[in-house]
Amino acid sequence: MPAAKQNIERPWRILLVGSGGVGTMASYALEIGGKAEVTSVLRSTYDIVTKQGFSIDSVDHGRDIQGFRPSHITKTVPDMTTSDSKPFDYIIVATKNIPDIPPTVSDLIAPAVTPGVTSIVLLQNGLNIELPLVERFPTNVILSGVSLIGAAEINGSIKHDEPDFTRLGVFPNQTVDLEIAKASALHLIDAYNAGGKVEWIFDEDVSFSRWRKLLYNASYNVVAALTGIDVIRMRMSQFMIDDLIYPLIREIRAIAMAAGVVLPKDLELFFIKCDTHEGFFMPSMGQDCRKGNAMEIDTIVGAPLREADRLGVPAPTLRTCYNLLRSLQLKVKENKGLWTARFEAKNPYA
Amino acid sequence: MPAAKQNIERPWRILLVGSGGVGTMASYALEIGGKAEVTSVLRSTYDIVTKQGFSIDSVDHGRDIQGFRPSHITKTVPDMTTSDSKPFDYIIVATKNIPDIPPTVSDLIAPAVTPGVTSIVLLQNGLNIELPLVERFPTNVILSGVSLIGAAEINGSIKHDEPDFTRLGVFPNQTVDLEIAKASALHLIDAYNAGGKVEWIFDEDVSFSRWRKLLYNASYNVVAALTGIDVIRMRMSQFMIDDLIYPLIREIRAIAMAAGVVLPKDLELFFIKCDTHEGFFMPSMGQDCRKGNAMEIDTIVGAPLREADRLGVPAPTLRTCYNLLRSLQLKVKENKGLWTARFEAKNPYA
Repeated sequence: MPAAKQNIERPWRILLVGSGGVGTMASYALEIGGKAEVTSVLRSTYDIVTKQGFSIDSVDHGRDIQGFRPSHITKTVPDMTTSDSKPFDYIIVATKNIPDIPPTVSDLIAPAVTPGVTSIVLLQNGLNIELPLVERFPTNVILSGVSLIGAAEINGSIKHDEPDFTRLGVFPNQTVDLEIAKASALHLIDAYNAGGKVEWIFDEDVSFSRWRKLLYNASYNVVAALTGIDVIRMRMSQFMIDDLIYPLIREIRAIAMAAGVVLPKDLELFFIKCDTHEGFFMPSMGQDCRKGNAMEIDTIVGAPLREADRLGVPAPTLRTCYNLLRSLQLKVKENKGLWTARFEAKNPYA
Repeated sequence: MPAAKQNIERPWRILLVGSGGVGTMASYALEIGGKAEVTSVLRSTYDIVTKQGFSIDSVDHGRDIQGFRPSHITKTVPDMTTSDSKPFDYIIVATKNIPDIPPTVSDLIAPAVTPGVTSIVLLQNGLNIELPLVERFPTNVILSGVSLIGAAEINGSIKHDEPDFTRLGVFPNQTVDLEIAKASALHLIDAYNAGGKVEWIFDEDVSFSRWRKLLYNASYNVVAALTGIDVIRMRMSQFMIDDLIYPLIREIRAIAMAAGVVLPKDLELFFIKCDTHEGFFMPSMGQDCRKGNAMEIDTIVGAPLREADRLGVPAPTLRTCYNLLRSLQLKVKENKGLWTARFEAKNPYA
């Protein structure tokens, strides 16, 4: 079986794709544990990190870490089909997952995936994100990372202010034997926790974790992106909670239920009460929207809506929000040159 | 009966409240006809108009009209209860109608309304806008003006580029005899058309006209405000028409039907095809939103939604859009000092 071929002599060879806050803190934890050797793919920060390394202010690891460099740094995803290096044991993908803007995750990592050997770890939000990878890489383990870390990266500086609490588990819908996949997950958790500063745990129920996280992401993130309003103001308005957040949370819970994932009713109020950060907290999709960045609307909003349609569950609030978010994403695409507005184009309705 | 007391010797004494593009072109048409004497309430443009008058570039009246001044100019709504002037025959209200931001239309015009004499003309968009006025001024005629004019005002300069086509009619739900109200409407139309350049017509069915206009206003205006995307781009995307505009149009049509107003099904496609202006046309609510101005969401979106709830008609797309628009309006209110975000406020859900 594929994962049995994994290199069981340490260090594990790990490729990290996506060195924002989440990815860089993962590379740090893995490197200090001594059981992993990380190759980071850096794009915009390649030069600055080559010269001076990352500087890190971390709630878990220390407030003034200077000059951190992973074992290897590369500008592009390595092509293992033409390399004589040993294959990667793991590829950790910590990019945003935006299938409507190329490249897809599958296309991005394909050159570095060694069939039957490399475990692919999706440290990303959203639902059904494993499906294109299972199809493309049927002999590879596909692992799910659901992270509650709060960490942001700007020009090689990391501000990590919410502890790294991540559940790593096995996507149920994969072609590789699930016990082998579980062993691969446990090896990575062992390497991750080896530094003693953070504790990743094994996720026994990936579907539950992902639907549970959607209760927040497909409500607060969605409304924040569409309105530009932070969580505290939403609560103070009351109607934004009662008439937008609550309906979205209830719809997500109903869809999950129809999909066989029971999210306890208590969670509705839990997600109304949570997030009592200091200050006016803006969910990440709201931040992305404000900055004109592409948003993860397909995996966070489109995917549960497709489940709703498949299962015949009404989701009118989610549907309208999804279509409005697609509209905002269209502006992002136009600004990035991925969509062009041509006035001379024929009115398709005329 | 009240309106019988109207001054039938010309000129009619008319108070115009709201001298944007629509209001100023109304004052111009009325003054050149010679059958009306207009008093305009000017706020931001009082000084410039006093000094040099309005300058007007009009598709109906001429491209280079300089120095137009209505017969009288005032900074505030005149208080007729303490004045010995003759009462106003008409008050034409051409402000935006935003009941959620004070003053209301009723409060604004109250000092100038002479009971039993003054006809109140609401040259404004939206549904059920007459109800507060009928209640407040039960002895006054309340008239409906539904305008298709395209005219904008900036610092006393008017750009009027879509012809003034306005239906003036009688709101059915009023306490004054409807025949008297109709006579009042016909007198005003006569005065309006006297200049020979524009033709207002009598509106035999105000409810139909207002619901019909909502097909556009509660769809394109709403989506433009929520997304910042113009009508041409909406069409080019296709999904914005299919998944947002069409559902909104269908919901409005269904609510109207339940309210006893039959909008022919052909109108759905008519409003998909209309608006083939040159260039990328941004509906007015989209312009307001972009400029941070308050929006007419209560009269254009809230009012039909309340009808839907009263009549038991599902309107899920309209409901979600309404609540998102209320959220955007909350930001406008905060910027205007009408709502304050206090972090120390108790989380009402904790």
